[in-house]
Amino acid sequence: MSGGSQEGITARKADDFDEWYTQVILKSEVADYSPVSGCVVYRPLGYAIWEAIQKETDALLKQDGVSNTYFPLFIPERLLKKEAEHVEGFAPEVAWVTETGSSKLDERLAVRPTSESLMYEVVGRWIRSWRDLPMRLNQWNNVVRWETKNPTFILRSREFLWNEGHSIFATREEADAERERIMGIYRKVTEEYLALPGYLGKKSKAETFAGAEGTYSIEHLLPDGKAIQGPDWHSDGQNFSKAFNIVFIDREGNKQYAYQNTWAISTREIGVMLATHSDDRGAVVPPRLAAIQVVVVPIVNDESKEAVLAEARKLMGALAGFRARLDDRDNLTPGRKFNEWELKGVPLRVEFGPRDMKEGQAVMVRRDTGAKRSVKLSSLAAEVSKELESIQASLLQRASAFLAENTRDAGTLAELKETLSAKGGMVRVRWCGDVKCESTMKEAAGGKILNVPLDQKPTKGVCLACGRDAPTFALYGRSY
Amino acid sequence: MSGGSQEGITARKADDFDEWYTQVILKSEVADYSPVSGCVVYRPLGYAIWEAIQKETDALLKQDGVSNTYFPLFIPERLLKKEAEHVEGFAPEVAWVTETGSSKLDERLAVRPTSESLMYEVVGRWIRSWRDLPMRLNQWNNVVRWETKNPTFILRSREFLWNEGHSIFATREEADAERERIMGIYRKVTEEYLALPGYLGKKSKAETFAGAEGTYSIEHLLPDGKAIQGPDWHSDGQNFSKAFNIVFIDREGNKQYAYQNTWAISTREIGVMLATHSDDRGAVVPPRLAAIQVVVVPIVNDESKEAVLAEARKLMGALAGFRARLDDRDNLTPGRKFNEWELKGVPLRVEFGPRDMKEGQAVMVRRDTGAKRSVKLSSLAAEVSKELESIQASLLQRASAFLAENTRDAGTLAELKETLSAKGGMVRVRWCGDVKCESTMKEAAGGKILNVPLDQKPTKGVCLACGRDAPTFALYGRSY
Repeated sequence: MSGGSQEGITARKADDFDEWYTQVILKSEVADYSPVSGCVVYRPLGYAIWEAIQKETDALLKQDGVSNTYFPLFIPERLLKKEAEHVEGFAPEVAWVTETGSSKLDERLAVRPTSESLMYEVVGRWIRSWRDLPMRLNQWNNVVRWETKNPTFILRSREFLWNEGHSIFATREEADAERERIMGIYRKVTEEYLALPGYLGKKSKAETFAGAEGTYSIEHLLPDGKAIQGPDWHSDGQNFSKAFNIVFIDREGNKQYAYQNTWAISTREIGVMLATHSDDRGAVVPPRLAAIQVVVVPIVNDESKEAVLAEARKLMGALAGFRARLDDRDNLTPGRKFNEWELKGVPLRVEFGPRDMKEGQAVMVRRDTGAKRSVKLSSLAAEVSKELESIQASLLQRASAFLAENTRDAGTLAELKETLSAKGGMVRVRWCGDVKCESTMKEAAGGKILNVPLDQKPTKGVCLACGRDAPTFALYGRSY
Repeated sequence: MSGGSQEGITARKADDFDEWYTQVILKSEVADYSPVSGCVVYRPLGYAIWEAIQKETDALLKQDGVSNTYFPLFIPERLLKKEAEHVEGFAPEVAWVTETGSSKLDERLAVRPTSESLMYEVVGRWIRSWRDLPMRLNQWNNVVRWETKNPTFILRSREFLWNEGHSIFATREEADAERERIMGIYRKVTEEYLALPGYLGKKSKAETFAGAEGTYSIEHLLPDGKAIQGPDWHSDGQNFSKAFNIVFIDREGNKQYAYQNTWAISTREIGVMLATHSDDRGAVVPPRLAAIQVVVVPIVNDESKEAVLAEARKLMGALAGFRARLDDRDNLTPGRKFNEWELKGVPLRVEFGPRDMKEGQAVMVRRDTGAKRSVKLSSLAAEVSKELESIQASLLQRASAFLAENTRDAGTLAELKETLSAKGGMVRVRWCGDVKCESTMKEAAGGKILNVPLDQKPTKGVCLACGRDAPTFALYGRSY
């Protein structure tokens, strides 16, 4: 809690999204710039959001049988090179340690961009037979991908925090069956906690993770009309197990290569969440993730001060079941306090003054809508609980409506181009699955295929690009 | 849970501590070697211990008003150089990133050995007046110190996980007052969770953290008679605030430099804990930290199998309040299971066979002492709870007795040398505080001053080295 002298947001979300977004992040004190360009400093308010995401995701993963581990930060160059597609995908973005103290290293060490190569070199030793499988490991850590094109505050940072799940199965069937469970967990966390909707689908070959056979993602839509990839799950088949010799003896006594998957959710979601819900007065944070859910602001004058403060402190007892804060600073006017907590995205404000005290009530103000209502002190906790749930639900609802409104159809290349450049958003296009048609669309309209949503039934229709049969739609858009 | 074909520990703790320790870590599946020498892979069993340490420490820190944050991994070289003693202390151990992708960087980036310089460059911007203080920030992260002398598995690793707390105060008094609270938290976690005793005291100037005015530590003693430093707290005075210009306007309207402290507990404690409690049959893990606290092993023959297993599954319901596991693998004998869970340090084993079933009882076996006793099924949960508490208490008691037995007195340099080389352990020596006398002792006996314990009353006596007045004792020993 700083001295309260932040200035408000001076850019408008509708007019200058980039400037507005940056101001929201900085002025809400969610994050700050780092002396190293493209890296992010997470301040207490922002890190608390990440802790909440971690906590919920971690509990669901553990329930599903996943174990946490920690593997080292550094990967010797020779290991990174073991799987050809993998190194090709990541080499351009690797930060290399070449010196320690005043000595040159014999072999360069990659700062992990992702841990497949290091982990798989090690875990192969832990597996002997089918009885050791499945082995489902996870780590919460930091990774570095030195993007030079367009690092964007939190959304695309050169270092980010994430979970990287790595699971190893005896059969392809078991490996494939994990997808629904993991993506279900990610969907639950993004929808029910971050209040972020998205389309769950399969990426095109061109957009598949380096070294994987198939990538599935949740695709979000930002308010500026650009899409951004959320959590993902990759089916690696036996690509890595062959490169790293991860074998097991099956029930029949034969040596087999294992099947592997990987999956991740990252700090990027914090940026997507803030960009989606926040407004021209500052951050809006869903109640389930908010470090402070309710702030009580006493409205005092010189005579009433002691009595009102004493009563406000009692209110805090009634709010013990929430993450509540009493703002009893005496150097700021109530108005300044309102502005500050609105800027920081506290979901609910409770105002309490001498008149309220007399009438045994308080005034509740929602951050998302600004709606005010008086509630009896005797039912304060119940009303706060109800209001927080209502805010949580309404944020998801609003974001879902925005996503639906901004998902459009295009039947021709010209329509695709026209829709994308006039309105942005996501565009549903029939696609036959051919990489050449994907290129045709890119050339015609810019952007890319985001994914092919799983939640659709095949119907009759033809590919936008080639006119051949295309029973399903892909989502197309410009993307971060 | 692997196929159970681990071989047991083949070295003896009393005969070959180093080999025994390494075998305990590897064969218990707590950790494994990394392809990069000196870095550690924490397997599920080991990482669960770290999660438990984090959880307890983090809750206590938050209760005390500390907020979590995340600051980037990379520190530009120019920042690291801002505080002269600090860079001098760390430069020989820094891992440097010099290239990204295929480009050379203009400025080398240090992989953080600790985050003072990066954090303080940033947090200065967040502080305007005394109202913004204290600002008490923490991060749980990974740091790299490229030790070349003697990396030791978990105890001294080149990358380790820790918390780094950084707090900023308006006055020296407030800053100093934090020491007791933070060291109290660390003492609580090490004693009550890790069951590790230690001496809390002040380091000598020679052993003070690079850039700090004073360092306080908890010093543990390993079974091989060598000391090892546990958690620490540093008083930085205004050293860093002057180097990084961390100033605030005080109540009188004057600009002041702030006072700072830093503090840490690291994954090293996992190694100290395992070295201390484990035995020739494998790991011994205190119940409060154990990923699995109780394992139920059914003893079945062909006829009784179904009935015993069904009843054992019911037992798991009664044990729902514990981290309990039923080992119903059908490819291993009970004996093999016993060995495996002893190797992995599960505090309590419950054996349950056809005879037990008839008599409505089970057999409880303690990992630490091997003591067996029968308990009625009706009181199983209560007895398990009691036994786990007893194990927890007894581990601390035993380690405390070992520490007390191996803390000896020396009145002369010759006695110091003799005691250290004959018996190791810690030696209480009167010391006047002069750095020259510290050097004299080092030359005479090897080892070093560990710390000057806080828990002592000044008495009359003279310095071991110079004969001048020395009212207090220092602890002296060989150290990791």
